[in-house]
Amino acid sequence: MAVIYERVALIGLGLIAGSMAHAMRRAGCVGEIIGTARSAETRAIAAEINLCDQIADTAAEAVKDADLVVLCVPVGAMASVMDEIGPLLKQGATLTDVGSVKQAVIDLVSPYVPEGVHFIPGHPLAGTEHSGPRSGFATLFDNRWNILVPLEGADQTKVDQLADFWTALGAKVTTMTPDHHDLVLAVTSHTPHLIAYTMVGVADDLARVTESEVVNFSAAGFRDFTRIAASDPTMWRDVFLTNKDATLEILGRFTEELFALQRAIRQGDGEHLHDYFTRTRAIRRGIIDAGQDTAEPNFGRAPGTKE
Amino acid sequence: MAVIYERVALIGLGLIAGSMAHAMRRAGCVGEIIGTARSAETRAIAAEINLCDQIADTAAEAVKDADLVVLCVPVGAMASVMDEIGPLLKQGATLTDVGSVKQAVIDLVSPYVPEGVHFIPGHPLAGTEHSGPRSGFATLFDNRWNILVPLEGADQTKVDQLADFWTALGAKVTTMTPDHHDLVLAVTSHTPHLIAYTMVGVADDLARVTESEVVNFSAAGFRDFTRIAASDPTMWRDVFLTNKDATLEILGRFTEELFALQRAIRQGDGEHLHDYFTRTRAIRRGIIDAGQDTAEPNFGRAPGTKE
Repeated sequence: MAVIYERVALIGLGLIAGSMAHAMRRAGCVGEIIGTARSAETRAIAAEINLCDQIADTAAEAVKDADLVVLCVPVGAMASVMDEIGPLLKQGATLTDVGSVKQAVIDLVSPYVPEGVHFIPGHPLAGTEHSGPRSGFATLFDNRWNILVPLEGADQTKVDQLADFWTALGAKVTTMTPDHHDLVLAVTSHTPHLIAYTMVGVADDLARVTESEVVNFSAAGFRDFTRIAASDPTMWRDVFLTNKDATLEILGRFTEELFALQRAIRQGDGEHLHDYFTRTRAIRRGIIDAGQDTAEPNFGRAPGTKE
Repeated sequence: MAVIYERVALIGLGLIAGSMAHAMRRAGCVGEIIGTARSAETRAIAAEINLCDQIADTAAEAVKDADLVVLCVPVGAMASVMDEIGPLLKQGATLTDVGSVKQAVIDLVSPYVPEGVHFIPGHPLAGTEHSGPRSGFATLFDNRWNILVPLEGADQTKVDQLADFWTALGAKVTTMTPDHHDLVLAVTSHTPHLIAYTMVGVADDLARVTESEVVNFSAAGFRDFTRIAASDPTMWRDVFLTNKDATLEILGRFTEELFALQRAIRQGDGEHLHDYFTRTRAIRRGIIDAGQDTAEPNFGRAPGTKE
């Protein structure tokens, strides 16, 4: 494959950056990968597993001469990173990010982007419950969507180049406005995560059901929630702090529906419940047909092993 | 393996009964398996795939001379099945069920159990989002818990025999009172299912986010909810109608916690959110250590395939 960017700098070396490094090498679509992270331990692990071609001690050092700079830090850390690297970005370079919210990232990052640098926000819709530099893998983005959110007046050549890059990493690329992105993600990601965290918190907190009961009997459905609720706490804190309005809107809709179902249970309205539970099956079928999940029962989990 | 029951009758031929049939054959722990279902289509499929040694047209016929009768129908159908088979049960036979609630099953079934028949309610905590006679598989119960709920004065020999049977099918066996079972399951299964159904219903119902957006961008977390919300609607309607009190209690706790998190989002209280999201990680670790889920990222789902 042709080289799309000569020199790529990854700022932050967690699950997404690590997976990007593996996927870039699989594709052979970049010349050189430079990575950096604030924590010395993270940098040491990345060096030990040879995640990048070079590990830089500072973000300032990493972005020198980079043709593509990718912000892979929690949203709450982006402004301070930009304060450090903004003045050092190469003329003509592309700057992007992988943050889960987009309007807040634009507000935080834009003031630091110099004239002549192309800032194109983005969000690869892929992840796992694991985090840290060892958690990445090359296939994470395969067949997953990456939403690019080009700003008004963006250079289309640069947007196309970034789209080609993500396509080379295995992803499908689309574009959206920041507002619409934040609403769609509030539905497909942010509210589900908050609900999963809440349910696991409730289970953890009950005096009448012991923790070992919750753990042992989790295969009846609960264990699916605990996977989501094991995601990185800092990243998720920042998501909710920076996508407040859309999350609160969807949460409002959610509690409204939940109360209606709760009333149906209290009143013994079996027809209401059955209708509701029937209609939600179709959407699962759509997700499987679109290649966004497996049709295997229980996600194709390996069957339990006898101890 | 020694034969534990000579003749086993499965009433209902869905996911659980089908998996029991496969698991019984794998174990070689029963003499003969007779299955029946109300629907002629289900009976025809079961016969076609050779699910049982015999398919009976009626439950009355199926239970004749059976040493173990297993009620594998939705809870709401149990009373009418018992009305049909009660008088025909063999003296000394064991009668059990696989219903997701236990006090309601006891209330519905007990009046029909003749003197000399051993009714031992049970609940294997295993399942998938699929249903019907083709959905069963032999490993479904491996390393999963089966909760037996023996009634007061139960014959311990018969309880032990049923426990041996489930152990032969791959399960781990424990006992509980019906009330406590219903509360534990409200936490680990019933409330999570209701919440998942609600979230998927909300997403399906939003005018500002299209269904194709929900489907395409589901990999960010939502798709996990859709698996649970694709479960059998009749079974789940009956669960909520028959475990009303415990479900409403846990739902009350859930909304209380959700409102606290919602307020933290509205007020920008990052510390509250971070603390909450950190504490829920430990429970996931416990579930993996207990062998109740895989540590593989995304449940070990196959990576997406490029179209």
